[in-house]
Amino acid sequence: MAAAAPTQQVTPERFFNAMSAYQQTEAVKTAVELEVFTAIAEGNTTAVAIAKRCAASERGVRTLCDFLTIHGFLTKAGSQYGLPPDSAAFLNKNSPAYLGGAIEFLLAPRNREAFTLLTEAVRRGGSALGEGNMLPDNPDWVKFARAMMPVMVMPAQITAAELRKGGEAHKVLDIAAGHGMYGISVAKQNPAAQIYGCDWKNVLEVAEANAKGMGVGDRYHLMPGSAFDVDFGSGYDLALITNFLHHFDVSTCTAFLRKVCQSLVAGGRAAIVEFVPNPDRVSPPGPAAFSMMMLGTTPSGDAYTFVELESMSKDAGFARVEAVNSLGMDDLIVAYK
Amino acid sequence: MAAAAPTQQVTPERFFNAMSAYQQTEAVKTAVELEVFTAIAEGNTTAVAIAKRCAASERGVRTLCDFLTIHGFLTKAGSQYGLPPDSAAFLNKNSPAYLGGAIEFLLAPRNREAFTLLTEAVRRGGSALGEGNMLPDNPDWVKFARAMMPVMVMPAQITAAELRKGGEAHKVLDIAAGHGMYGISVAKQNPAAQIYGCDWKNVLEVAEANAKGMGVGDRYHLMPGSAFDVDFGSGYDLALITNFLHHFDVSTCTAFLRKVCQSLVAGGRAAIVEFVPNPDRVSPPGPAAFSMMMLGTTPSGDAYTFVELESMSKDAGFARVEAVNSLGMDDLIVAYK
Repeated sequence: MAAAAPTQQVTPERFFNAMSAYQQTEAVKTAVELEVFTAIAEGNTTAVAIAKRCAASERGVRTLCDFLTIHGFLTKAGSQYGLPPDSAAFLNKNSPAYLGGAIEFLLAPRNREAFTLLTEAVRRGGSALGEGNMLPDNPDWVKFARAMMPVMVMPAQITAAELRKGGEAHKVLDIAAGHGMYGISVAKQNPAAQIYGCDWKNVLEVAEANAKGMGVGDRYHLMPGSAFDVDFGSGYDLALITNFLHHFDVSTCTAFLRKVCQSLVAGGRAAIVEFVPNPDRVSPPGPAAFSMMMLGTTPSGDAYTFVELESMSKDAGFARVEAVNSLGMDDLIVAYK
Repeated sequence: MAAAAPTQQVTPERFFNAMSAYQQTEAVKTAVELEVFTAIAEGNTTAVAIAKRCAASERGVRTLCDFLTIHGFLTKAGSQYGLPPDSAAFLNKNSPAYLGGAIEFLLAPRNREAFTLLTEAVRRGGSALGEGNMLPDNPDWVKFARAMMPVMVMPAQITAAELRKGGEAHKVLDIAAGHGMYGISVAKQNPAAQIYGCDWKNVLEVAEANAKGMGVGDRYHLMPGSAFDVDFGSGYDLALITNFLHHFDVSTCTAFLRKVCQSLVAGGRAAIVEFVPNPDRVSPPGPAAFSMMMLGTTPSGDAYTFVELESMSKDAGFARVEAVNSLGMDDLIVAYK
């Protein structure tokens, strides 16, 4: 027999946790800046040893490391700190998947400022900073392209492999290329593919460097400028639209998808990689919460559901739309002309 | 037979969650400012109705409410938002336990600024803002006293009742009285008790008003000034030292406890209410994480373990120390002269 459920006391714990949640952001940023994770990976496992390696106080390091342990970023046994697998993979600067550089983009001053004005953003229904991070040649997108490259290698490879199942693509449009990894992965997997990357000029320099570094520079062609203004030309059998649509409202997305559709050959495909919440808009938590990032930092962006993306694509002239694969946080959706 | 555990993929989810954790802080602050919880309690349950009641955009309210749902502050069924019990109790401004006012204290600009300088605080081992919030007559403590009163009513009553089991107190020292609720609760439960509250003059005005409002004003006596400098006098049979010691280092706490001990009669007690982490310093999460708040905002404060508090008390002249009761986040510890 099950015992009667105990009466749960209502506590303000959730409220107090939210009030101090910003400290998690600052603590992880500080630990990366001081190279605490790297220090531990190198074998400095006590507060004394970490403090020495990081040129910080023992007292400060002890409190920081305890706080990181509470939040799962470190382990602690006696006075010895250790790295759980995710911290070892992503926060040790000597790891190939090191993500510490992403902090500069994720916590760019404009983003932080936008969220100090969140009340105003909710009042007006869009970023209180006006154009937010949508301005031309915003240097934050260079930070993004540089910092996010390591973490995008695997999703980009999975996406390219998945798309090959639908046939080899020869002329590929890589929209808002950023780090360029999506287009580069297609080029790596198909030696006959020519990639045409479009992004702000300063960002495209990062994609170009990555393409050269990965041996496909001669097949990675540059189309600098706003994706809304650049003449894409025609004859593409694949367009990559990765983490782009969420910055804009439905009518802007639809008009843009129409432009893409017109650049494709008959039977061509648009591969849309997006944060896609369920129809309830509150699950799964990661993609659903991304809507808040768009409210804070863009005039009218959002995280769109599959039905919304399907509807925009069909209104833009695509014949059918399929959800193909989940890449973790992101989903891959393919629209067929 | 248990199936083999699946190989868990290492993901950067924890890192990205921490990078956006600050958005939780801002979102709850915004929802309180716009009175979203109050609006829902009043029966406005759709984004349209909430937006109208809160003079905000439907789009902004929808994204905010979805985000609050993801983090457990709201429920959502179809397009209807609702309040879980904790939000109803603490975030509806018409609830007697409303805590929204605490935001002004918890997110005081000095606290936020201190955490933007956390890297420097870890380097030096104390707040990068020097004296932090320890300066005389800091108006943040008035905000604290006003805002925290509702949530302290119950712990203060429990503490007073628990202390009566050790005998009635007649002359009571209420150190860093703040809202005054600890001393007031003793006075309410024992009509013979005289309370002597010590705090900054501006803060003590809040305690005085609360004492009058609760009918014990004639037995609540004021000793304005720094608890380190004010002459307490003598003959107390109980001293209340609530949420005070964590602001200071061990030697300062010990010297202060000696002063308190000397003001007590033989057999008198000091009731210490504190955030007390376990000896591992990483559990329970709430009290353990409080150490980070002290690193960020005070020159040398900390969350002390029971063994540390016992050791300070004995060094200060107390004969024995007992952990009496857990009040939720706080613990009650009694030191006997």
